Amino acid sequence: MPDGNLVKEGERVDDLELSDLRIIQDPERFCFGMDAVLLSGFVTASRGDRCLDIGTGTGIIPILMSAKTEAEHLTGIEIQAASADMARRSVELNALSSKIDIVTGDIREAASIFEAASFDVITCNPPYMIADHGLQNPESALAIARHEICATLEDVISASEHLVKTGGSLFMVHRPFRLPEIITTLTRYHMEPKRMRLVYPYIDKEPNMVLIQAVRRGKPGMRVEKPLIVYDSQGVYSEEMVRDYGF
Amino acid sequence: MPDGNLVKEGERVDDLELSDLRIIQDPERFCFGMDAVLLSGFVTASRGDRCLDIGTGTGIIPILMSAKTEAEHLTGIEIQAASADMARRSVELNALSSKIDIVTGDIREAASIFEAASFDVITCNPPYMIADHGLQNPESALAIARHEICATLEDVISASEHLVKTGGSLFMVHRPFRLPEIITTLTRYHMEPKRMRLVYPYIDKEPNMVLIQAVRRGKPGMRVEKPLIVYDSQGVYSEEMVRDYGF
Repeated sequence: MPDGNLVKEGERVDDLELSDLRIIQDPERFCFGMDAVLLSGFVTASRGDRCLDIGTGTGIIPILMSAKTEAEHLTGIEIQAASADMARRSVELNALSSKIDIVTGDIREAASIFEAASFDVITCNPPYMIADHGLQNPESALAIARHEICATLEDVISASEHLVKTGGSLFMVHRPFRLPEIITTLTRYHMEPKRMRLVYPYIDKEPNMVLIQAVRRGKPGMRVEKPLIVYDSQGVYSEEMVRDYGF
Repeated sequence: MPDGNLVKEGERVDDLELSDLRIIQDPERFCFGMDAVLLSGFVTASRGDRCLDIGTGTGIIPILMSAKTEAEHLTGIEIQAASADMARRSVELNALSSKIDIVTGDIREAASIFEAASFDVITCNPPYMIADHGLQNPESALAIARHEICATLEDVISASEHLVKTGGSLFMVHRPFRLPEIITTLTRYHMEPKRMRLVYPYIDKEPNMVLIQAVRRGKPGMRVEKPLIVYDSQGVYSEEMVRDYGF
């Protein structure tokens, strides 16, 4: 199918600069950020793995993982029908329909959508902010992507415990200020935090992202990795960002 | 009293390079490390605060805090009588007896030693390693300082909840691999993790220490601080280590 039929008015096609991959995005809706790209580099998925991305949005994580890992199959679940539709068209645009499925659905109903323990790897770039009464427009696509309106941190972790195999992993990117809640909730659902990396914008600044891997029924003991420094100086990406993430 | 009467055979007196402070140490027993020094810089204690250091060893933390903070009074508790005696002599050597008390005692009996909620600030540089059967000499001074033989992480946190005022803080240094256990145990005892800093030996290496502040009955939300990088290159301390810690 020519690209023209896959891209709607107001949408744009961005080159992911990786294996000729492209992605459809709508600037009016949520566009993926550096967090999704860093998460796709933090994930480890082995040959044959079945993976699920919770709240997949544009589908950026399964699309990047199709090139970066040896995962056998990738599913993205997205509650917003318009986003899911756009992600599905991006999958088609990249001729990845045999490898990636996009499901429109609510992760809070995961048990009726997917079989228990049917995934090896789960990924999630969840809304970072707690939903609150002050929100102007809680039904907007942007609000749902950024605030915990349709799924809380606990919803994501509880669904992950249900859907991932024992010994399988949940990989998440989040904000460091919520780390205590992330760690206590993971532990409560028997998802043991095993690996963590903090992302510092500059070497002398507070981190603004945390990457974390939790293993279902894993043994206690977490490896904290070397810092990920984004910029060496104003506007100049660090060597790692250029080498490993193509910034 | 001349120094000679305070220092026993086999002991040495080290200059702390801060406010003319000195400390007695016995190379056969546990000597303080960089972790204690970094903890003393991470602690915040205000004018009038009453502070307790759990497992004070040589007394290094209250002695450094006497110069670095405006704390009104500092108590150190130490289970090993020989260490407590040495710490007491260091306090005397520095003419700090009116400001620092060293108590010989077991933190597991804290409730019978100190009044509940009688401290504003608690500090602890605990044994990092879990006690196990493989330990050759579990009664040695070094083993007790390094392994959880006389007090576990949970003992320290449970005693802290009992002894610190509501809104008061526990400051701890520990190993990053135990972070999930540290955070879940703090939370279980209503000691909310509020501030954390990771110590990386080099900018491209995994952290080997974590500094953490928990507030009794604090609100959720943790500030993760900029990284503390120890060395710029082999044997060359970073600017912060030289400027703030005198390395």
